[in-house]
Amino acid sequence: MKKTLIVGTVAYDEIETPTDSSGKILGGAGTYIGLSASIFNINPSIVSIVGGDFEQKYLDLLISKGIDVSSIEVVSKGKTFYWKGKYHKDWNKRDTLNTQLNVLADFNPTLNKDEKESEIVVLGNLHPLVQSTVLNQIESKNRCVILDTMNFWMDNALEELHNVISRVDIIIINDEEALQLSGKDTLFAAAQEIMSYGPAYIVIKKGEHGAMLFGKTEFFTVPAYPVHKVKDPTGAGDCFAGGFAGFLAQCEEVNFQNLKTAVVHGTINASFCVEGFGTSSIQNLNKEKAEKRFKEFKNYTRY
Amino acid sequence: MKKTLIVGTVAYDEIETPTDSSGKILGGAGTYIGLSASIFNINPSIVSIVGGDFEQKYLDLLISKGIDVSSIEVVSKGKTFYWKGKYHKDWNKRDTLNTQLNVLADFNPTLNKDEKESEIVVLGNLHPLVQSTVLNQIESKNRCVILDTMNFWMDNALEELHNVISRVDIIIINDEEALQLSGKDTLFAAAQEIMSYGPAYIVIKKGEHGAMLFGKTEFFTVPAYPVHKVKDPTGAGDCFAGGFAGFLAQCEEVNFQNLKTAVVHGTINASFCVEGFGTSSIQNLNKEKAEKRFKEFKNYTRY
Repeated sequence: MKKTLIVGTVAYDEIETPTDSSGKILGGAGTYIGLSASIFNINPSIVSIVGGDFEQKYLDLLISKGIDVSSIEVVSKGKTFYWKGKYHKDWNKRDTLNTQLNVLADFNPTLNKDEKESEIVVLGNLHPLVQSTVLNQIESKNRCVILDTMNFWMDNALEELHNVISRVDIIIINDEEALQLSGKDTLFAAAQEIMSYGPAYIVIKKGEHGAMLFGKTEFFTVPAYPVHKVKDPTGAGDCFAGGFAGFLAQCEEVNFQNLKTAVVHGTINASFCVEGFGTSSIQNLNKEKAEKRFKEFKNYTRY
Repeated sequence: MKKTLIVGTVAYDEIETPTDSSGKILGGAGTYIGLSASIFNINPSIVSIVGGDFEQKYLDLLISKGIDVSSIEVVSKGKTFYWKGKYHKDWNKRDTLNTQLNVLADFNPTLNKDEKESEIVVLGNLHPLVQSTVLNQIESKNRCVILDTMNFWMDNALEELHNVISRVDIIIINDEEALQLSGKDTLFAAAQEIMSYGPAYIVIKKGEHGAMLFGKTEFFTVPAYPVHKVKDPTGAGDCFAGGFAGFLAQCEEVNFQNLKTAVVHGTINASFCVEGFGTSSIQNLNKEKAEKRFKEFKNYTRY
């Protein structure tokens, strides 16, 4: 089992969908990645920052999943990062109604001795400079660094983003963002271009249409697990990254065979995520339920 | 090997893409389905109608593929069905610039004795009344009827379309059309609704995102073969139907296992189709090339 480190937001979310409204609930990329990865019983650490308003019960929830929260800094006088978003009937369209960085504005992550030896490092969606700060502290030689990012950083911190991309092993990105980042007009060309920046592998997420995994000379494509009813897509991409990283953390080796299975586990965990509101579904997931769906999915995709 | 009958247009197309313009070339659903199915060496019959302006070289091409063209009626004083369309940078958008029904307006297909005994019947995209006329003439007991249709008939001949759907075994339809026909808002609900009209199986095509196969209690999903460069999407859906039907025609039995493989062969043949302009790629396809890509695809999708 590989020591796993996750850096990402631990936050408050407020989510509106055409049928539901969440009120203020637990959210954040670090939270979703951590919950998703934790089903593999790998005891990941989350490095993050919250305010004094962050409820202990949410930290207790993470702890109950075997997650090490000792590097989630609590700024007692500060307020937790807050995001409010609204989905439309077409789940692919989302409006951000409100973003309050709060304590995240001064987030300067510091890893403890154990965390510096992490072999699986997930750089969740955050400012690329914060991602780089974490990467600078990693001392393990045999490490696999997985980067998740989004178009916001392409628009606002492209140079810093390119810098951190050049230093990671695997990048996870969605289809539109891959085209934007590479300036290419097909996903194949985009994948080759982005790998030329440094990463040995790229995972392109296509939402309800599945995912693709590219290596320099290898390729894998998989449809999405067919969810009958989407309730809330929030965190799906993070749960993908968490399932992907969590599975890899249990593997002896990071090779293409294992990466393919990791992509499928990402898909499976994301499918659970969207079936519930906020973290409700992913926090009730366990390895047995995920394995059961993995087998069902294998049956759905085998010919 | 099952006797296979294809009814569909044999036509002249003119295609404009952002980079190319075809001039007047061979086209039509019956043509694409027939060329695609013919790679399985099943000697399908095409039932169709053309005008005196239809070039012998195109009939010779079909004959060279082992296709029986004796039921392609030639109306010497008439003109061949003509369609002109234009694609945009986003291949999913297509404008019809011109449609001339010509001899197709009076198409009243009559099957010969052999054709009436067909066991695989492909009702290509045509007016549902014409599809019904063909179906009325089929005398074989052990038959499998595959229907392809499109939104045009939902908008213009919905009752007739429902009538023919109720009599077929398998319907092939794209994702948007499945939602429109069923009035449902998810593909799962749409598939169940459409199967309640009669068909035992439904194939939902999702273009570059692959396809899904539904039985009453069974499910299969597959991504598309990853085409590096799309040149012209014309006929892709028909080549899917042709590959699907052609593979089935070689199978002993129409069961879910074989239907899954048929869907993959549909996907493979469609992937060849879009790599060339008009029929250029599908008419140069053979079983060996298709099998090679089938194996490559299996490698791309296996985990």
